[in-house]
Amino acid sequence: MKLRLLTLVACMGICNAHAQDSLQMRKIADEILLHGTCYDNLRVLCKSVGHRISGSPAAAKAVSWGEKAMKEAGADKVWLQAADVPYWYRGKESLYLKMGKEYKKVRALSLGNSQGTSGRPLEAQVVMVHNFDEFKALPDSKVKGKIIFFDYRFRQDFVFTFHGYGDAVKYRWASPSVAAKKGAAGVIIRSMSTGMDDFPHTGGMHYNDSFLKIPEMALGNITADQLEQACEKGEVMARMNSECHMMPALVHSYNVIGEIKGTETPERIITVGGHLDSWDVGEGASDDGAGCVQSIEVIRAFKALGVKPKCTIRAVLFMNEENGNKGGEAYADSAKARSEHHILAVESDAGGFSPRGIGMEMPTEMKQRILKYKNLFLDYGVYDFSLEEGGTDISPLKKKLDVPLVGLIPDSQRYFDLHHTDNDVFEQVNHRELKLGAAVMAQLIYLVSENGL
Amino acid sequence: MKLRLLTLVACMGICNAHAQDSLQMRKIADEILLHGTCYDNLRVLCKSVGHRISGSPAAAKAVSWGEKAMKEAGADKVWLQAADVPYWYRGKESLYLKMGKEYKKVRALSLGNSQGTSGRPLEAQVVMVHNFDEFKALPDSKVKGKIIFFDYRFRQDFVFTFHGYGDAVKYRWASPSVAAKKGAAGVIIRSMSTGMDDFPHTGGMHYNDSFLKIPEMALGNITADQLEQACEKGEVMARMNSECHMMPALVHSYNVIGEIKGTETPERIITVGGHLDSWDVGEGASDDGAGCVQSIEVIRAFKALGVKPKCTIRAVLFMNEENGNKGGEAYADSAKARSEHHILAVESDAGGFSPRGIGMEMPTEMKQRILKYKNLFLDYGVYDFSLEEGGTDISPLKKKLDVPLVGLIPDSQRYFDLHHTDNDVFEQVNHRELKLGAAVMAQLIYLVSENGL
Repeated sequence: MKLRLLTLVACMGICNAHAQDSLQMRKIADEILLHGTCYDNLRVLCKSVGHRISGSPAAAKAVSWGEKAMKEAGADKVWLQAADVPYWYRGKESLYLKMGKEYKKVRALSLGNSQGTSGRPLEAQVVMVHNFDEFKALPDSKVKGKIIFFDYRFRQDFVFTFHGYGDAVKYRWASPSVAAKKGAAGVIIRSMSTGMDDFPHTGGMHYNDSFLKIPEMALGNITADQLEQACEKGEVMARMNSECHMMPALVHSYNVIGEIKGTETPERIITVGGHLDSWDVGEGASDDGAGCVQSIEVIRAFKALGVKPKCTIRAVLFMNEENGNKGGEAYADSAKARSEHHILAVESDAGGFSPRGIGMEMPTEMKQRILKYKNLFLDYGVYDFSLEEGGTDISPLKKKLDVPLVGLIPDSQRYFDLHHTDNDVFEQVNHRELKLGAAVMAQLIYLVSENGL
Repeated sequence: MKLRLLTLVACMGICNAHAQDSLQMRKIADEILLHGTCYDNLRVLCKSVGHRISGSPAAAKAVSWGEKAMKEAGADKVWLQAADVPYWYRGKESLYLKMGKEYKKVRALSLGNSQGTSGRPLEAQVVMVHNFDEFKALPDSKVKGKIIFFDYRFRQDFVFTFHGYGDAVKYRWASPSVAAKKGAAGVIIRSMSTGMDDFPHTGGMHYNDSFLKIPEMALGNITADQLEQACEKGEVMARMNSECHMMPALVHSYNVIGEIKGTETPERIITVGGHLDSWDVGEGASDDGAGCVQSIEVIRAFKALGVKPKCTIRAVLFMNEENGNKGGEAYADSAKARSEHHILAVESDAGGFSPRGIGMEMPTEMKQRILKYKNLFLDYGVYDFSLEEGGTDISPLKKKLDVPLVGLIPDSQRYFDLHHTDNDVFEQVNHRELKLGAAVMAQLIYLVSENGL
């Protein structure tokens, strides 16, 4: 009888705690859905700064924007954290394909970090392969001096599109060195794209220093289909011309940090962030303007609601996620040097779409503590806690300080239509989806700050 | 020991059945994600037919389109089912507001089924109220001869936006008769809209025949905000002019039906549908071109995969959901007259967005049988089986024949930005989201056809 009474009392305690958590989660969601400024912030970032590749004047402008937005959100303290970053410069570029009688200019983008043709035309026959196995089977004589077209299709049968991206991205990342090893002169790839359109997708690539640094360009799906058909029919020639190159020196740049000081355990820090840099196309709205304005929104909502969190909450706009992660490294290095105690880091870098899940990179017992809230998140459309996902910017915190990581998992269907393209613009982000993602991050951070992890 | 063995064998049986179900669900999803034609079908419907209000020449064109598309999908049999429908005609319309010194034309839409000003200007002072309670508190003298502005805001704090719609829609539906009862001359409403834009939303309204039929127009949120501010400051005048009216006679029209005959129990019928009519704005892409092409896709996918379902599967493009439901009634009446045995009806009429749930209107024991598959649907992002939702077109099947109903529940965040507006166009639908919804419908129908309900 006593035991049953105790169980009952314990249960009531838990239920009460959950009822309070649930109420506070509701308040946070209401505040953000009704009064959130993240959508307006995103408009300003996209339309007044636009794309902002690391090291560029636009990235510097974005830092100023972030500092202002963080102050307007009401952060107790706002500061810049230095990080020297690479600066890859695109310059002029063109790709002509001769798929019939005449050369025709097609839409194409050089891949990020790649070395172009130094502004001189590179003309060669196109050799199509569908994957690395087919390429390996080619004799060197069929590769030497040619432009290799890696025609690997983004698999549309994966429901979670990041799995398709993970499967395909090696062709963007590694093709030039794989091809150069056998004497190729250049590489064309089919973009890492789910799109039924012709937007080429840029994105990071990497040279193996043992081989010649040959140029790499990406085609949108429609042009890639045309090139595929032309290669099946007969000889195709390509003429690449591009000025892109990595600038010789690093550029001074910054992470933007805004903080609410914790009231009870200010030494315990929760970081929430996205990355401020983007590729040099579109407006970097979904990648990752969305994550930046959502992180700022967490600060704004806490302040607007008068939430005085037990722990310190830091929103961080990281610099240089796309090609170096210098901002993420600098943040973790600083945390280590100052012996900071980070209890959790949360990232939003998968688009501002409707939230669906909370990815976790942490020990099982910590996961269990977050899973206690699973039912509470259902009301906000968040049900998937199965993914082992954090985020690139926060990954050095885990590597260097063993900080548990959380990645917001939004609906993934539209992301790889837009990712790294001229179509990654403000208009592709929905105000309610963006706000709901911010609300879920703020709710989780509130729960961990107040109840521990 | 025997009992445990039996349990084990039973469990293995269930697990095997589930493994087979899971495999077939995967095949269906792969087929639709890789080879689905629903997105291309939607493009043709939206761009070659466009909007198609019941009774209009465009609706007749849509019927021809549907018949052709159903045949191309490979249905064993395609036919038209007669339904006489009302035809509401908009004609010319304009709304001028004098919010300062001069009249200015604003964007506005007459509400569906409403009676306009017969092409003569109606000029009167605007009286703003925020809800019916405020209106009731007004003395008749303040209402008589005035144009009442029902400035009720769509509640953005509901996460599931259909709850916000359910809360707000009475102002569209009932305001004119409520206002006419006290002598008002006309009504302006703030649209049932989550949009941060100025698209006015049309949609069905209803007159109480006891009162004068006064005109009703809707404003987009931006103009509604301006009118709200102007009314708070001082006197505002409005000048409405509209020709809209209900045509005196019903028009012959049709549901479009495509069928795959069942192999084992052809007398058992599963219906899947959406509605072919739309309002007379935009392209009726999300409402409900999406549901139509998804229903056709179910037929196509079964045929392409060589699935020979035990039960008969019927895809139905219903006519006149928006203002009369004559198609839905005709379908149920025919089923009753022929003593057809319908075991399930499924509808998609909430947009072509990422599927999230399966709504069920059926007895608890049937729900339990569908809930057995809950974990299998998680891989497709479908987790919410809590909503009591079928669909308007299939509701007469329940009323007249007690057929269990299922409604596809897509992500709801964007729907009421677009619903009944000029912005409900093909470009607002994502190919992968649309296909995934079709896949989930096809999967559920397969499971019920093969395993019963």
